Amino acid sequence: MKLAKRLDNLGTETAFAVAAAATAWAAQGNKIYPFHLGDINIATPGNIVEATEKAIADGYTGYCPGAGIPELRAAIAADVGSKRALSYSADQVSIQPGGKPVIGKFLAAVMDPGDEVLYPNPGYPIYESQIEFQGGVAIPYGYVETAAGFDLDLDAIKHAISPNTRVLIYNNFQNPNGAKSSRAEMEQLAELAIENDLWVLSDEAYFEIQYRGQAESIVSLPGMQERCVILYTCSKRFAMTGWRLGAAIGPQAVIAVFNKLNTNIESCTTHFIQRGMVDAIAGDTAGPNAIIEELRQRRDAAVAGLNAISGISIQPPSSTFYLFPNVTRIMERKGYNDVNQLMQEALTTTNVSFCTRKHFGRAMEGEKDRYIRLAYSGIGIEDIEEGLAKLKTYFEA
Amino acid sequence: MKLAKRLDNLGTETAFAVAAAATAWAAQGNKIYPFHLGDINIATPGNIVEATEKAIADGYTGYCPGAGIPELRAAIAADVGSKRALSYSADQVSIQPGGKPVIGKFLAAVMDPGDEVLYPNPGYPIYESQIEFQGGVAIPYGYVETAAGFDLDLDAIKHAISPNTRVLIYNNFQNPNGAKSSRAEMEQLAELAIENDLWVLSDEAYFEIQYRGQAESIVSLPGMQERCVILYTCSKRFAMTGWRLGAAIGPQAVIAVFNKLNTNIESCTTHFIQRGMVDAIAGDTAGPNAIIEELRQRRDAAVAGLNAISGISIQPPSSTFYLFPNVTRIMERKGYNDVNQLMQEALTTTNVSFCTRKHFGRAMEGEKDRYIRLAYSGIGIEDIEEGLAKLKTYFEA
Repeated sequence: MKLAKRLDNLGTETAFAVAAAATAWAAQGNKIYPFHLGDINIATPGNIVEATEKAIADGYTGYCPGAGIPELRAAIAADVGSKRALSYSADQVSIQPGGKPVIGKFLAAVMDPGDEVLYPNPGYPIYESQIEFQGGVAIPYGYVETAAGFDLDLDAIKHAISPNTRVLIYNNFQNPNGAKSSRAEMEQLAELAIENDLWVLSDEAYFEIQYRGQAESIVSLPGMQERCVILYTCSKRFAMTGWRLGAAIGPQAVIAVFNKLNTNIESCTTHFIQRGMVDAIAGDTAGPNAIIEELRQRRDAAVAGLNAISGISIQPPSSTFYLFPNVTRIMERKGYNDVNQLMQEALTTTNVSFCTRKHFGRAMEGEKDRYIRLAYSGIGIEDIEEGLAKLKTYFEA
Repeated sequence: MKLAKRLDNLGTETAFAVAAAATAWAAQGNKIYPFHLGDINIATPGNIVEATEKAIADGYTGYCPGAGIPELRAAIAADVGSKRALSYSADQVSIQPGGKPVIGKFLAAVMDPGDEVLYPNPGYPIYESQIEFQGGVAIPYGYVETAAGFDLDLDAIKHAISPNTRVLIYNNFQNPNGAKSSRAEMEQLAELAIENDLWVLSDEAYFEIQYRGQAESIVSLPGMQERCVILYTCSKRFAMTGWRLGAAIGPQAVIAVFNKLNTNIESCTTHFIQRGMVDAIAGDTAGPNAIIEELRQRRDAAVAGLNAISGISIQPPSSTFYLFPNVTRIMERKGYNDVNQLMQEALTTTNVSFCTRKHFGRAMEGEKDRYIRLAYSGIGIEDIEEGLAKLKTYFEA
């Protein structure tokens, strides 16, 4: 039986192969230091668990509206609006089973086949996969490494825009490189979006994962709210990755399309989980604060562990739970050309598992430096220190 | 900001408008008799709730594999296989957030734009919507009313098959008409599928909702397992509509595509809900049996209530929780042409809310009879009797 031809254009997250390799290596009796996971090994706050269990007991086990329950839509509208100095109404929120569904539905709502979509590279691989699977033309834009971290390559973005460009995907607080835009950078990007009348997907999955300062959204800049859809998720902020709860927030006309797609695709998002979140969204902050505090300590330990390695130098990112160290000098020292060789050898030599730049998109033209990505969301401090000490020995050998 | 042109091809479930009208009528202080819902107002069995809460407490709150947890895939493979006298392995099962996601993903996996897909009409409206939104050509086939219920219009299916036909969607235990194929009918349909090398989506959402006899699946017929994907759901059998848990079961190559689509679309289905279902799938049958017993009593009350109306005559269907009475004579008596006029007037005259044939697809060529659909899954026996007595008065007036 033949499958559809269009599956040739369907990509995936190749990082799952890293997890599989780590699992296989662990099955041979090795202790893994899991820096490859984007998952969180911290318990979901108790108030959310209790409210969810109460919702089950109260009988919220049947269908709910495809758009989500009104109370949760209103709670997210108020919370997201107040943190961005904007006003959103409940009908500008479409509840989703996670943040990820927002990507494909957004493209379905605003992109026609043949339209060009700008997306970050390195970046979350589902952008590219969904653009191409849905018949769009994926146009990558890159970043420039600075002493402080990574800046958007705004010149490249400017030059990549054509009359066929319809959409810009922007992931401030970036996976994998942890980049956070300055106000000036964000303003320049917004200007380009407005000048070229682009829809913008603002992937704000890590908006609440901030270690210093206040997060700002491009949506708050003049002329942007009407062209932006925010990807919102409970996954990171509340350590709820496996619960699958997120939302799209944007102009009412496009949110109505999300709702219609919900009806087509999954009927609704789990009812009692929505009910359980209503009070938690803007309620007791003890849980989310404790998560940030734990992540901050892990970040500091991981940054210290990496900076102890000769040839690596990174600044502590102020957001996300990813580190994206430049390992070009390590590669040169070892005489390696393929960064995935370094990854594979690190696993079997040190039991340290991580992803590389290659799991976040094809190399850009002229790209020479090599990077690895370490996540510290799924590994405790003791193991961070132990693992990175082993990595130091291997990297410096 | 312009939306995508292809949204012109996106349909929806118009039955939601019926629910909205009922809600609005209730808000004016009226007591509604809700026969329009496909939802179930019966509690989810306690063993499932307990196992789910234990799974949360045990920390199954992070991501799990996109394909689903191995234990649940194995449990569903064993249960679905044993009830169909077939052997399935765990890697032939892809866990989904409900049964509905199987429809769109199946079409994405096997249909290219321009391919023709046969689908039942009247039938679940998402078939048509997803075929057309994904660029396929939707070819409806109908049913023939008999003294016992509804038969497939096999001649029409035969004539509708062209060299471009790639897919047949088949919903035995049918929504909305409750049709159940005889073995002979199923064999003829299977023969057509094999002769024309069609993929088959066997929507078995109501496979476990049986009031007499043993359910049979077209998948069990020779030559069918290799071309069939089963739509499986926990929604009806376990009264879990709002939990969102289902699966696609089929050949390994197509299930691998479902898994890749899961990674693209929603990462995974809620982790602790999967964990909580492992033992329940083939475990304690007290809960599902009690649900069937309750539904059987409602069915008998609803059938009796309808047959008491002059001009209506139906047989109790052996499956599903839907009744699809022919109301042509009622319409003639009232001099109505549009069955939705009957529906609207019934709501405001009697507070009885139901769907009509029009919510399940466009009328077929030459279609003359008129039908309404009553679901008895969301209404208790007392209200069934009370509501249908009111409907009798109105229909006979």
